[in-house]
Amino acid sequence: MDYTARERDADFLMNDVFDVQKSWAEIEAYQELSSDLIKAVVAEGGRLASEIMAPLNEVGDAHGCELKDGEVITPPGFKDAFAQLTQGGWLGLSGNPAFGGQGMPKSVAGLIEEMFWAANSSLFLYGSLTVGACLSIDAHGSAEQKNTYLEKLYSGQWTGAMALTESHAGTDLGMMRTKAEPQADGSYNITGTKIFITSGEHDMAENIVHLTLARIVDGPKGTKGISLFIVPKFLPNEDGSLGPRNGWASGSLEHKMGINGSATSVINYDGAKGFLLGEEHQGLGAMFTMMNYERLSVGLQGLGAGDLAYQHSARYAQDRIQGRSATGAQNPDAEADSLLVHPDVRRMLLTQRAYVDGCRAFAFFAGMQLDAAKHKGDEQADRFGQLLTPVVKAFLTDKGLEGAVMAQQILGGHGYVKEWGVEQIVRDARIAQIYEGANGIQALDLAGRKVVRDGGKTLAELLDVLAEFEIDPEHEPQVAQAFARLLRASQSMVARSNEDANLPGAVSADFLDLMGMTLCAWAWGVMAHQAGDDDFGLAKKQTARFFFARLLPRTLGLEQSILASSDVLMDMPEALFNA
Amino acid sequence: MDYTARERDADFLMNDVFDVQKSWAEIEAYQELSSDLIKAVVAEGGRLASEIMAPLNEVGDAHGCELKDGEVITPPGFKDAFAQLTQGGWLGLSGNPAFGGQGMPKSVAGLIEEMFWAANSSLFLYGSLTVGACLSIDAHGSAEQKNTYLEKLYSGQWTGAMALTESHAGTDLGMMRTKAEPQADGSYNITGTKIFITSGEHDMAENIVHLTLARIVDGPKGTKGISLFIVPKFLPNEDGSLGPRNGWASGSLEHKMGINGSATSVINYDGAKGFLLGEEHQGLGAMFTMMNYERLSVGLQGLGAGDLAYQHSARYAQDRIQGRSATGAQNPDAEADSLLVHPDVRRMLLTQRAYVDGCRAFAFFAGMQLDAAKHKGDEQADRFGQLLTPVVKAFLTDKGLEGAVMAQQILGGHGYVKEWGVEQIVRDARIAQIYEGANGIQALDLAGRKVVRDGGKTLAELLDVLAEFEIDPEHEPQVAQAFARLLRASQSMVARSNEDANLPGAVSADFLDLMGMTLCAWAWGVMAHQAGDDDFGLAKKQTARFFFARLLPRTLGLEQSILASSDVLMDMPEALFNA
Repeated sequence: MDYTARERDADFLMNDVFDVQKSWAEIEAYQELSSDLIKAVVAEGGRLASEIMAPLNEVGDAHGCELKDGEVITPPGFKDAFAQLTQGGWLGLSGNPAFGGQGMPKSVAGLIEEMFWAANSSLFLYGSLTVGACLSIDAHGSAEQKNTYLEKLYSGQWTGAMALTESHAGTDLGMMRTKAEPQADGSYNITGTKIFITSGEHDMAENIVHLTLARIVDGPKGTKGISLFIVPKFLPNEDGSLGPRNGWASGSLEHKMGINGSATSVINYDGAKGFLLGEEHQGLGAMFTMMNYERLSVGLQGLGAGDLAYQHSARYAQDRIQGRSATGAQNPDAEADSLLVHPDVRRMLLTQRAYVDGCRAFAFFAGMQLDAAKHKGDEQADRFGQLLTPVVKAFLTDKGLEGAVMAQQILGGHGYVKEWGVEQIVRDARIAQIYEGANGIQALDLAGRKVVRDGGKTLAELLDVLAEFEIDPEHEPQVAQAFARLLRASQSMVARSNEDANLPGAVSADFLDLMGMTLCAWAWGVMAHQAGDDDFGLAKKQTARFFFARLLPRTLGLEQSILASSDVLMDMPEALFNA
Repeated sequence: MDYTARERDADFLMNDVFDVQKSWAEIEAYQELSSDLIKAVVAEGGRLASEIMAPLNEVGDAHGCELKDGEVITPPGFKDAFAQLTQGGWLGLSGNPAFGGQGMPKSVAGLIEEMFWAANSSLFLYGSLTVGACLSIDAHGSAEQKNTYLEKLYSGQWTGAMALTESHAGTDLGMMRTKAEPQADGSYNITGTKIFITSGEHDMAENIVHLTLARIVDGPKGTKGISLFIVPKFLPNEDGSLGPRNGWASGSLEHKMGINGSATSVINYDGAKGFLLGEEHQGLGAMFTMMNYERLSVGLQGLGAGDLAYQHSARYAQDRIQGRSATGAQNPDAEADSLLVHPDVRRMLLTQRAYVDGCRAFAFFAGMQLDAAKHKGDEQADRFGQLLTPVVKAFLTDKGLEGAVMAQQILGGHGYVKEWGVEQIVRDARIAQIYEGANGIQALDLAGRKVVRDGGKTLAELLDVLAEFEIDPEHEPQVAQAFARLLRASQSMVARSNEDANLPGAVSADFLDLMGMTLCAWAWGVMAHQAGDDDFGLAKKQTARFFFARLLPRTLGLEQSILASSDVLMDMPEALFNA
């Protein structure tokens, strides 16, 4: 499936919009990052995405994965393409240099991850889970564990997976039944069944390292009794070579709506040997190191899907001739005008583009906060990163699906048949709203933990910091109004939550949506100001005008909806939902 | 897939909300329709839907259709189920009694069609296209054509299909290339290739009657040169028995995102014999008799999908235990509370339900307008029907997808795997926004032809008629505000369209959405007023409160967006969409 990496947009964000060199100058670890180096890295990532990964996107969907004699066979070509991804060091892009990582900023890595997701989300999942596993091991592992695992994971010689979900316990991890029995040698025997395990078993690496949540026998009930274990497919020998096969296997593959090239396994642990990662009973915290990274990255999956869909539908709209302009034939020599003469087709394309570009900008800003928190110990940046992460995850994936559905609509019947590829983007994009914490959980995290808990303080600080950016004068009043609206909504939510424990959850989805729209408004205000007068800049300015005139008005309704009481939800007796 | 037909809702709409007996008393053809008869018909339709059609819904998706030696094989069980559908006379439910139809009102037929769509949209497509073909033949056919075709189609002995689309010409029918050559015997030889032909070829009826659009050679260019032809698979003998096979065949089956049980063919006409239906070069008008019917019905397909998805997710939410209520354990003896304690899960369920019930109500009202237009020659009702049809088609199918996606979200990971069935509803529902006139075309039809063309007169009349219904006092101000908002938006659109030919298309999608929301608001105001104090009535009143507090606010943004100039769309140079 054709995909063009957005190198120019990456450059625009780094240099014109956010002036990253200025921020990086204050960070020791980034001293050697020149513009030229970054440009070359982005270009090479884009090439890999468009030339190696994208051509396999439809193949992965059509072939899917197969479980044969306990082994999972990935789609044709995946193994070679993954080898190119790993040999280029891409899995260790933002990894710890002490173990062979490249130490790149998360913000830059995010630009490249977006390209990988766009090009082939199923294929990149094998890498993404590995990157996440490295983060957990780097943060919580012993020196020995880091030595044993990190370098092999960064290099893709081994890959990672996270094993949380059980069939009766999805979001509610406290109900988990997988158990861990302490052994005399300090390891644990893990027994239980996990479902929905992405990259849990496959044929693209010599070893697969599960980070598995389980309950140590006789440990506390609920989430407080859960620990995290490293449970590799093959037990490493002391010299790092592969020892005996461990006691787990893929029992079956899930049959999914999409991301068919990604192998999603049911994993049966039958007394598998596991090694405690971090402290006993502190597994959720250790797992969330991985989850938070994944959440940001999964947001970028939504972004990538949205851009891939945009690119397809924009090309189609230009090439396809149908009907005539309402103002008279624009292309009188042809049988019809292009789809681009129709205002409603333009509306759909500009909607897609406005969200893709706006979201990319604020996701990049979120990445910069994570970088500053990690390398400068910047406490405020840390809070900003935590506040922005659920918005990036949920808003970008919601808009990713919305954009893919719009692209499909532009193609009409061709959008519904497999031949043209766009229906696959819809099916693939849909998962990103569900996994790594469903979007409703993101919204509750934002409303409850990130806003109500500190009385809206961090949000207000964030808006102050954002207001320091130069906004295009044409859009300054609209951005100011959007900020004021979000602030009013947050204050109302905070005030009413004191007396109504259900209030944050009742308004959370609309609140997250409002915050995403406000961040887009800010991003467009800043981008319009920095855009030049070439085609690239004109497209940005015009898209900004569209966003403010046609999309931002949605926030009027969101604010009003947030003012509603939780009673309109909670007063309905349970039995009546099925009456 | 389990599905419960909404008999109680049908009864509520017919008797409490719209008092159909009063309207029917004025229509000669409906004199014999007693409440008891209608109730029995609805109950039997519901039984057929839930007991015969619904159990085959997943089978149809999993097996799909197969083309073998030129014959299309439908999924296991489809043939028997379709036989029960046809033997019960369901295809002729609102058909002309002179040829064996049941003569039921379109409004009532719509309630039952919703059930059939919900239970198994792929299976019902074989019937729906037949019903549409009958309408065209009944309206435009010669006495001989009616005698030859109608009875056999109503009875399902033969089925119908409509053949419009060609690969280069989707919405733009004027570009059509399929040609018709007049023959000495008065028939025409049809040659060309059509794509996306639903029920174009299958194994469930002894004959398949295509209504095919083609251009008579040397006829005028563009849409004015298109004629409609009856092109049966087997040419009927004079006694009605089957004669020789006609010269068309299914060249291949389309591979689609969903509705896999419905056979969608590429049809090659190789000098097939066709019989002119209606006048030469008047094919589009004759086809639109069928299209308009289909448009209303396809709206009901969206409604059915939305309700099916609602039912699944509501059951799941009640059965599934996850987490605890924010106000403390509601079910302390169990490991966790049901999903229904979580406000955001309730928000999703109530959103689904509010659209399903609200849309059902105004679609029923639209059906009543078609009935009054047909049987009383009521000119105003005819205009109302034409005004409402695009809204029913587009708004109901948009909300159908939205509801199905929400249902999937409630199921989390289980919503993404095939096992639980909900992802199929999403894939199946998606087509309804695309076929029978893509929703963008519906919006343009509404904004341009139905509102701007008569200066908003019919819309204003409609709002006056709707205002005569008794609205629940709790919601009266909100309904009045919604009416005022729609009126303002229409006046602005009408006024600006005089000087800007692109304006209707620029704001059409938001205008249709605003009109759908306003009709829902009206429906909820009326339903809340008529609802009793039993569980059914309480659920209605509570859902109404939710709708007004949480969904209607969307209209604030829609109005503002409609006020934008078309420049924000049209000023973007074409080349920049792909820059």
